[in-house]
Amino acid sequence: MTDLNEMIIPTFDDVIAAHERIRPYIHRTPVLTSSYLNELTGAELFFKCENFQKAGAFKVRGASNAVFGLSDEQARNGVATHSSGNHALSLSYAAGRRGIPCHVVMPRTAPQAKKDAVRGYGGIITECDPSTSSREEVFAKVHAETGADFVHPYNDPRVIAGQGTCSRELMEQTDGLDAVVAPIGGGGMVSGTCLTLSTIAPSVRIYAAEPEQADDAARSFRAGHIIADDAPETIADGLKVPLKELTWHFVKNHVTDVLTASEDEIVAAMMLTWQRMKIVMEPSCAPPLAVILKNPEVFRGKRVGVIITGGNVDLKKLPWMKG
Amino acid sequence: MTDLNEMIIPTFDDVIAAHERIRPYIHRTPVLTSSYLNELTGAELFFKCENFQKAGAFKVRGASNAVFGLSDEQARNGVATHSSGNHALSLSYAAGRRGIPCHVVMPRTAPQAKKDAVRGYGGIITECDPSTSSREEVFAKVHAETGADFVHPYNDPRVIAGQGTCSRELMEQTDGLDAVVAPIGGGGMVSGTCLTLSTIAPSVRIYAAEPEQADDAARSFRAGHIIADDAPETIADGLKVPLKELTWHFVKNHVTDVLTASEDEIVAAMMLTWQRMKIVMEPSCAPPLAVILKNPEVFRGKRVGVIITGGNVDLKKLPWMKG
Repeated sequence: MTDLNEMIIPTFDDVIAAHERIRPYIHRTPVLTSSYLNELTGAELFFKCENFQKAGAFKVRGASNAVFGLSDEQARNGVATHSSGNHALSLSYAAGRRGIPCHVVMPRTAPQAKKDAVRGYGGIITECDPSTSSREEVFAKVHAETGADFVHPYNDPRVIAGQGTCSRELMEQTDGLDAVVAPIGGGGMVSGTCLTLSTIAPSVRIYAAEPEQADDAARSFRAGHIIADDAPETIADGLKVPLKELTWHFVKNHVTDVLTASEDEIVAAMMLTWQRMKIVMEPSCAPPLAVILKNPEVFRGKRVGVIITGGNVDLKKLPWMKG
Repeated sequence: MTDLNEMIIPTFDDVIAAHERIRPYIHRTPVLTSSYLNELTGAELFFKCENFQKAGAFKVRGASNAVFGLSDEQARNGVATHSSGNHALSLSYAAGRRGIPCHVVMPRTAPQAKKDAVRGYGGIITECDPSTSSREEVFAKVHAETGADFVHPYNDPRVIAGQGTCSRELMEQTDGLDAVVAPIGGGGMVSGTCLTLSTIAPSVRIYAAEPEQADDAARSFRAGHIIADDAPETIADGLKVPLKELTWHFVKNHVTDVLTASEDEIVAAMMLTWQRMKIVMEPSCAPPLAVILKNPEVFRGKRVGVIITGGNVDLKKLPWMKG
């Protein structure tokens, strides 16, 4: 890792080390193709299916790298985070595999199913009020009381190096790509993709796909500095969080473009994937296919990797069931 | 094939020939595992995922074997069938690949989505009234006018030999099995499984799984002769059809037991598979997992193949959305 203006920037050596470290705890997920979707888009699409990953999402890569990179002394107090999504599940899973505690601060308003899932993986939940100030206050208390290692969902070099193992596998599993498209929220997956591809396949273009209704990364990309949204609302609930300095570093330096899709386009792409590929994936996975369908001039004739980031969806609340 | 009391009984040589014949037109579908479901059932489960098959179902194996086994002269007039389900889709797909017409007789009350799907694969639909007599009358007319080759959805030796390729792959993809569980409707998949396993792995027990509300195979199995239900109603809509003489031959001779599950158990098993395995499968695929969960004494400690037969489901009408 290199130290840049007080930020620790992970390097590709960190990705290689992460891959060795986490290999026993993660799946090498399959890459699926669909002749129907190839015909529809005019591109050749390679779907890296992290919905089949342990704990149901790519985030287990970064979380496992953080957990298993701790010294025994550091690990003794466990790990801690604030998240109500896949990072909480993934960190709980990884900590459980190592046999150390995982403390998760979650708003008390989070769905019961999410709380149950975190507890199912052995996570210890401390509830906060559904506000940033309460979350920070409660997290600081938990952190101080437990001495646990804080693993941020994405603004952490260990997490980004872990996420970088996904596109490393994708490149091994395909015979060359022209582009990779990944959804962007906080930017952990996109940063890991940038880190890996800028080293091993620098000619591959990297596109980030984002909901129009949470387009902070697109606006940041055009403005040249981080712009955070104020409480965006989108069906792609994993993509509401803003970029932070570490992920912005990668987006700014390596992403070709940030493309956006409307809510309707996201739901249509999600439904199309379920119908045609017969896989269960989250709404947050759908923006890449949505932007590929929306921008045929960018992708037609190209070999395109698409990261399907996770499959933890509430089957009783599917977006096309509305109304 | 051997001729038994005027029935043409396919042999394992027919399965080998079918496999060669259909290989260019079908997927060798993956076998997935789930550590969660293994823990839950106490068995080691190997899911053969025919939901990822061409046209979305195993039925494309038998349909392709029938279509590509025709001589050029026989093929000229195309093929014909009556079905509103996966056989109609699969036969249309296979005929399209060979470039010959496929005539499908369907009740005019069939969902528009199914008609569109058949037409999407190039099938030519002739509508009938939703009664057996109308279907037979209209089919006889279409058959006479076109001279097309009739490919029955399951009571056809070419179809059964084609379905037998599925368990042949499953045995190649796993390191030995104690049992295989497949859903049973008309018995095409179960018969193909019996045909293959009785030759290449005769110690593997074969279980057929069926909805309690359409338990004609279970009752036939106990009675020792075919009993057909009168218009059964079940969420597993692919399993409503009765056994016929050819499939009964295989069930009677090679099936260890026919186990049944209630509608609630089927829906629960379906939802569990979607949630944990992140795959989209039809209600008709769920009875095998339901009976494994229901009869732990039969399956615990065993290595069990489970045939996931198809993934063509109406995402806007999922069974857990009721009420």
